[in-house]
Amino acid sequence: MSQKVAIGKLAILLASLSEDELNSFQSSFDEVNYCQGKVGSMNMQKVISAVETAAKRNGLIQEHLYRETHALYHAILEGIEGVTRGKPVIGEMSRTVGLRFSVVRGCPYHDSKEGEWLAVAFYGTIGAPVKGAEHETVGLGINHI
Amino acid sequence: MSQKVAIGKLAILLASLSEDELNSFQSSFDEVNYCQGKVGSMNMQKVISAVETAAKRNGLIQEHLYRETHALYHAILEGIEGVTRGKPVIGEMSRTVGLRFSVVRGCPYHDSKEGEWLAVAFYGTIGAPVKGAEHETVGLGINHI
Amino acid sequence: MSQKVAIGKLAILLASLSEDELNSFQSSFDEVNYCQGKVGSMNMQKVISAVETAAKRNGLIQEHLYRETHALYHAILEGIEGVTRGKPVIGEMSRTVGLRFSVVRGCPYHDSKEGEWLAVAFYGTIGAPVKGAEHETVGLGINHI
Amino acid sequence: MSQKVAIGKLAILLASLSEDELNSFQSSFDEVNYCQGKVGSMNMQKVISAVETAAKRNGLIQEHLYRETHALYHAILEGIEGVTRGKPVIGEMSRTVGLRFSVVRGCPYHDSKEGEWLAVAFYGTIGAPVKGAEHETVGLGINHI
Amino acid sequence: MSQKVAIGKLAILLASLSEDELNSFQSSFDEVNYCQGKVGSMNMQKVISAVETAAKRNGLIQEHLYRETHALYHAILEGIEGVTRGKPVIGEMSRTVGLRFSVVRGCPYHDSKEGEWLAVAFYGTIGAPVKGAEHETVGLGINHI
Amino acid sequence: MSQKVAIGKLAILLASLSEDELNSFQSSFDEVNYCQGKVGSMNMQKVISAVETAAKRNGLIQEHLYRETHALYHAILEGIEGVTRGKPVIGEMSRTVGLRFSVVRGCPYHDSKEGEWLAVAFYGTIGAPVKGAEHETVGLGINHI
Repeated sequence: MSQKVAIGKLAILLASLSEDELNSFQSSFDEVNYCQGKVGSMNMQKVISAVETAAKRNGLIQEHLYRETHALYHAILEGIEGVTRGKPVIGEMSRTVGLRFSVVRGCPYHDSKEGEWLAVAFYGTIGAPVKGAEHETVGLGINHI
Repeated sequence: MSQKVAIGKLAILLASLSEDELNSFQSSFDEVNYCQGKVGSMNMQKVISAVETAAKRNGLIQEHLYRETHALYHAILEGIEGVTRGKPVIGEMSRTVGLRFSVVRGCPYHDSKEGEWLAVAFYGTIGAPVKGAEHETVGLGINHI
Repeated sequence: MSQKVAIGKLAILLASLSEDELNSFQSSFDEVNYCQGKVGSMNMQKVISAVETAAKRNGLIQEHLYRETHALYHAILEGIEGVTRGKPVIGEMSRTVGLRFSVVRGCPYHDSKEGEWLAVAFYGTIGAPVKGAEHETVGLGINHI
Repeated sequence: MSQKVAIGKLAILLASLSEDELNSFQSSFDEVNYCQGKVGSMNMQKVISAVETAAKRNGLIQEHLYRETHALYHAILEGIEGVTRGKPVIGEMSRTVGLRFSVVRGCPYHDSKEGEWLAVAFYGTIGAPVKGAEHETVGLGINHI
Repeated sequence: MSQKVAIGKLAILLASLSEDELNSFQSSFDEVNYCQGKVGSMNMQKVISAVETAAKRNGLIQEHLYRETHALYHAILEGIEGVTRGKPVIGEMSRTVGLRFSVVRGCPYHDSKEGEWLAVAFYGTIGAPVKGAEHETVGLGINHI
Repeated sequence: MSQKVAIGKLAILLASLSEDELNSFQSSFDEVNYCQGKVGSMNMQKVISAVETAAKRNGLIQEHLYRETHALYHAILEGIEGVTRGKPVIGEMSRTVGLRFSVVRGCPYHDSKEGEWLAVAFYGTIGAPVKGAEHETVGLGINHI
């Protein structure tokens, strides 16, 4: 891939690797800003809010700019499409998620005019609301900001 | 996560990391079978076929058993949901994909009665059929086999 | 169910039962008009056309009235949602269908002001384009006409 | 169709026929296990639970095996796609369902290596939460187990 | 367009123009019946109910005829597809709508046998449940009645 | 609505009104850039291309900047969701569209930091590939750029 910084791959690694495993990738994170978080819920609104709150608290987006909220929201929703595989519904479909997530902001392209982009990644489990009755799930959303 | 082997995470790493980067995870792959491949197309049927062919050639599924083809097919489709974020259409929506993929087969759960499961992961780019006009994308599908 | 005539159930029986099996239901068909047909394809447009053509040839709808074509079209599409389970795509998703179908026109409700309705049913197989690598599928669409 | 046992067709008959009507098909049920049930709700989670509970109580799936829960869950969801025709939402879309359902477990294929499969069928009504303002609906999901 | 009356365009104008702006189109409304309304909610059921109630109160559909309720319901849902752009979910996806809507009933086609049709239009905003964090949205549904 | 310029409404008017009808809105277009076009096809890729080409030729987006192509692409797709009402497929679903479209670029919000946004609107007909067997359709997509 001819991109300068693979913000999507970095987001996926932040969401899925342990701290130890992340060590060998540490230098890759120098060129981006990012945050990490966790959320478990049967309520999709809570999943969305958890990512939005983490991104704002960590300065990944400017809280009072709708433009940036809009960019983040669509990146979150695209990540949720991967997590829920086409049906962005959790509790109503009798399932629950336990997710780690990350938000990465950086300049993926060589041409500086391409500016900043956001990547939102999820990694965790989805399944019945019964301990152990679950399997892994992943999602990634990317948007210009 | 209380799973014994995170076949989904392994599949994502196989699809997104370079050979060098994969080295430090090598021991994790002892307990599973897997294959890797590449496909670039505006035609989703070709993407599906590329994964099915690789999985059969590498013995990940038994070619003449519909049961296993069925399990793989649904895992592929769930992975494609992440890649296409809810609209499993590529060329008709004027976009193209360049993907690395992996298929992992193993026993993710401690209880041996839970048997074997499949993970199918995609990592690469999706975008306009113009060089460079693309961003990263990821997908993961999991199924019992 | 308080309906006078279950046109949906009749459509499903017409699509899924053998001629012999249908014999014991024969009297139920006195109050409705219906036709039956078959179609096998990887192309959804051909599936839609097969039903439209059969319905017109058998006088189930008035060919030159868009109003009736429109009612039939949406009943067909709703039936296809069941057949394809949420993704109205066949060939592009590397699958093929072999279907029997029926169109039933009648007055399902006791109140005569509720007028005529259409039911379109499909029964058959969906699967990989390989003999035997397929399972059953069903779909039903209902619309006022 | 070259299948040995049409578990999908049997499931549809169990969900849609009266006890009297089922009599003439009785011998077909010798080779499969099945259960029947009823559920009426504006809440999809209740529909899913009703089928899962019936299937477990009647021994159609092994309650403590996630593998079997997973197979059943996806068969239920595919059946719900037919019932809701592409939008797996009931109450939020201001509609309610009154459904009879069945779960059938058996070996549909001649080759014994193809093993056991599940069919989940729904038949009933969908409509506004007003008595009589409803029409018929059908859904069928099939999965390997 | 060869239609006699563009009920969809009229519905869109009724939903999006101010009273003053509508003045210059006044003569176009002579041949149709219509009503207008407003609704703001995170709950899609409330949006659907608001349109149904307005249509019944203003005599656009006959309240006790399921046939007409059914035609209106599907026109509303098609309009909501435009408003929500493919995911008919509001609050669960952490968004809210503020909408003006209209229902138009008339005979769009020259051939009188084509009879009456309904158009339902929405215009307003969709966005985060935070004042100002929203953008415009539009939807139109058309059905025969 | 508290927006400074309703770019979505302007886009809808440009796509649906005749030149004469647009005259009374002329002053509203002083603050935005826009273009108009037409496309008729059974192929969605052609619809997308027609809008992209018109937007580039008229300088609505910078041709060689992926960032702007990406913003436009998603606005087009959201507009197509309204046109196709949830199934972004035309020919494969045996239907054709005849559309007028517009692209509007401007600053909708009072706060200048919210910057520029794009609106893409469609108005026209969708229906069977038979003259007259069609009804009106509308779509609007909005994105930050």
